[in-house]
Amino acid sequence: MATAEKLSAHVNGVAVDGLFRTIEAVKVTPSIAKFNFRIQNQWETGSRNCSTVATFGGANKELSHPKPFMLQADEPAILLGNDTAANPVEYLLHALASCLTTSMVCHAAARGIQIEEVESSFEGDIDLHGFLDLDPNVRKGFQRIQVRFKIKADAPDAQLQEIVQLGTGHSPVFDSLTNGVPVSVTAERL
Amino acid sequence: MATAEKLSAHVNGVAVDGLFRTIEAVKVTPSIAKFNFRIQNQWETGSRNCSTVATFGGANKELSHPKPFMLQADEPAILLGNDTAANPVEYLLHALASCLTTSMVCHAAARGIQIEEVESSFEGDIDLHGFLDLDPNVRKGFQRIQVRFKIKADAPDAQLQEIVQLGTGHSPVFDSLTNGVPVSVTAERL
Repeated sequence: MATAEKLSAHVNGVAVDGLFRTIEAVKVTPSIAKFNFRIQNQWETGSRNCSTVATFGGANKELSHPKPFMLQADEPAILLGNDTAANPVEYLLHALASCLTTSMVCHAAARGIQIEEVESSFEGDIDLHGFLDLDPNVRKGFQRIQVRFKIKADAPDAQLQEIVQLGTGHSPVFDSLTNGVPVSVTAERL
Repeated sequence: MATAEKLSAHVNGVAVDGLFRTIEAVKVTPSIAKFNFRIQNQWETGSRNCSTVATFGGANKELSHPKPFMLQADEPAILLGNDTAANPVEYLLHALASCLTTSMVCHAAARGIQIEEVESSFEGDIDLHGFLDLDPNVRKGFQRIQVRFKIKADAPDAQLQEIVQLGTGHSPVFDSLTNGVPVSVTAERL
């Protein structure tokens, strides 16, 4: 009985009982819903730099990851780097992929929709005429991003689109990237 | 002489001779400026998934990183994960940090501005009333992002702001995130 209850409380690897408890807790104490995520970045040389992901704020507390995560960045040789790590726009695609996938899986779990497998591919186009200041009409960033999900679930084809919309409709990175975020930047002497 | 030439061709660890050759090459053959970046993502369970960064298109060629980079994602325990890796929005902050830093350092190098050290902190606020569908007026994504650069360079204080603007004015991730990107999403059966 205890085992059956425990099993039924997890759908898609998501503790749905914990999810529903979180929702009830936020209704009682709205301020616990406020999260603050942060990183520190250290430039090494050229296109090499490293971010440390250590602490975050949430549920009215200061919290820490069990150990800091170190995220390197570099550029491939053709973009004048040493190709020791993924580059910033590849990290952006990973942020989008991981967020869409987690958001989809979590909200499907909350609705009792069991998902067996998810694979996805993400690609985006950049024209360096922007970055290199060769054409003011070409943007610096991604011109477009194409996402292709492949999903194995006990659901009719029409529902696959709905399942993916649970991701696009809830993902913080998808919202941030498609609708834009205000970013303030300050500089001081080190 | 050869050594002095080699040294003078690198500023801030950036091969500025290579950068200027790239600009001239793009003027001759504009199509080499088109790049296509891509990742594959595989869901594991719950909030755990992993992206593979292996190939990209650029300079009218299909190119590969020397080895694929594997990027894990997870969520902390308070967000129902196992905290084995940074989460998607932390990856988004890393993408922004690494891109702003590299863009700044590269464009400063092109102008002969020597930079000695760069540190930066990035933080962003998310209110889970959005993700949890508890308030339709609260967005799912970052409400705002604050960036603080600390720079050691042989430059007056006023120029520190200009140096940082070389980053914000050229960074593909900054442009993508502040102005938004169209994202198309398809789903099919695995």
